[in-house]
Amino acid sequence: MSSEAINRIAGCEVQFKCENFQKVGAFKARGAANAVAKLTAEQRQNGVATHSSGNHAAALARAATVAGIRSCIVMPSNAPAVKKKAVEGYGGEIIECEPNLRARETTLQEVLAKTGATFIPPYDFMDVVEGQATCALEIFEECIPFDVVMAPVGGGGLLAGTALLTNYVAPSTKVIAAEPAGADDAYRSFHAGKLIPVENPNTIADGLLTSLGTITFAVIMKYVDDILSVSDDEIVAAMRMIYERMKIVVEPSCAVPLAALLKHREGFSGQKVAIILSGGNVDLEKLPF
Amino acid sequence: MSSEAINRIAGCEVQFKCENFQKVGAFKARGAANAVAKLTAEQRQNGVATHSSGNHAAALARAATVAGIRSCIVMPSNAPAVKKKAVEGYGGEIIECEPNLRARETTLQEVLAKTGATFIPPYDFMDVVEGQATCALEIFEECIPFDVVMAPVGGGGLLAGTALLTNYVAPSTKVIAAEPAGADDAYRSFHAGKLIPVENPNTIADGLLTSLGTITFAVIMKYVDDILSVSDDEIVAAMRMIYERMKIVVEPSCAVPLAALLKHREGFSGQKVAIILSGGNVDLEKLPF
Repeated sequence: MSSEAINRIAGCEVQFKCENFQKVGAFKARGAANAVAKLTAEQRQNGVATHSSGNHAAALARAATVAGIRSCIVMPSNAPAVKKKAVEGYGGEIIECEPNLRARETTLQEVLAKTGATFIPPYDFMDVVEGQATCALEIFEECIPFDVVMAPVGGGGLLAGTALLTNYVAPSTKVIAAEPAGADDAYRSFHAGKLIPVENPNTIADGLLTSLGTITFAVIMKYVDDILSVSDDEIVAAMRMIYERMKIVVEPSCAVPLAALLKHREGFSGQKVAIILSGGNVDLEKLPF
Repeated sequence: MSSEAINRIAGCEVQFKCENFQKVGAFKARGAANAVAKLTAEQRQNGVATHSSGNHAAALARAATVAGIRSCIVMPSNAPAVKKKAVEGYGGEIIECEPNLRARETTLQEVLAKTGATFIPPYDFMDVVEGQATCALEIFEECIPFDVVMAPVGGGGLLAGTALLTNYVAPSTKVIAAEPAGADDAYRSFHAGKLIPVENPNTIADGLLTSLGTITFAVIMKYVDDILSVSDDEIVAAMRMIYERMKIVVEPSCAVPLAALLKHREGFSGQKVAIILSGGNVDLEKLPF
């Protein structure tokens, strides 16, 4: 999708890839589907498992159900009811644990030992990265010679997939990521050249609280051109612009690349830019406007 | 657009025609563009005028500017700043008047006398009805054998255009309209067989407060199959479903046909239904959820 008004404001030509319209409302459907598709016949028998309270949980539950296999999702006991309902709605089995990282990992290990299921991590896993790469593949199938592709970065699965795909399919196109200042481990890691996990992240872009993994970091260091950082106020302004000008529903994380483009618009002047809108799973009662 | 989840809930196959993505954010762009396109060379010289505080004002201003002619829009002095800004942004000249119907009409007559402009009414005018009919034309160009086409009804321009077009292009398709119970003049007029204007309309669907005109009523009586009525609570529930399931921004008026379909779902069981989503110009700070 595109908006003449946003092009005028941004001073460049932006095409939006709308992953808010994707199954489960986010690009995560791609990585989960690819990981499930690559299971061996033997692995399929015991199903898949993960720990997640976000979009990956619903995505994996759906991918498993579509493939006719079992999925066990470890979720913290305080996860929002709407998230649990989504996982159940897609046919996933929820295993609750105490709301801390240690309990999550212990409970997941117990589930894996008991069921023999295959663990599908949310981002630091090449089958998932490959799946997320199909989003950029569809962008380049539009046959527009994009100067830049932009994606948000949290754990780095979408960004690593986008960067790898762009390197193979459109090597002259730059890949620029955007991250909230309140969870800027990728920004700092990229510019320092070493992995610096974030401590106590705090941003309205709640899909981007996680830190990079070792696999995604390595891919990003090699194939990403730049990572920009934006404030929560800039994210909310970009989010509002998307609602008002494009008439679509996006979650705060999804507005981060447009916020970065608008902040640094002189660097994109006159260019053709593809922006991945990562998802639209927002609590309508908590919109920041 | 369509949604598997909504199809499951509704028990039929719904395709949505998204006029919230239309220029100026509503189907009104069509009628105004057609009316301007049909001006004679002489009429073009003196431009166009109307009175409106809604989407027709912005639509006519835009259509005139695109055609390179002048537009004068009479707006009540208490019209929201955002509506005035939209008209100005599209290149319309605003003439303010006292916020009552008499002042609106008197001021319009003064403008017409002074400028020689052609009056383009918001709905009760065949050039406008013709323009709105292009929406249904595009629906039938999809080549899906729809059993039903649904549209909201306020002044009746969109509904009359939809009904006429459907009669000529797809005569076996039923045309069913939906109206808020708090402004149900079309519902009452249709079932009584005579024009009964609404008094003191009151509904969240603020784009549907107007009553039918004599032209639109005549077309609707002849070519519309049924008009259904829904409560504001049903409208808000349908609006929320569109935001959550389809991830798009719509105004309350826009959700009225889906609300009617869900209320009477047994009557649509298994059918192919096209719903016109009329517009997306909503004040994000006043969302009903």
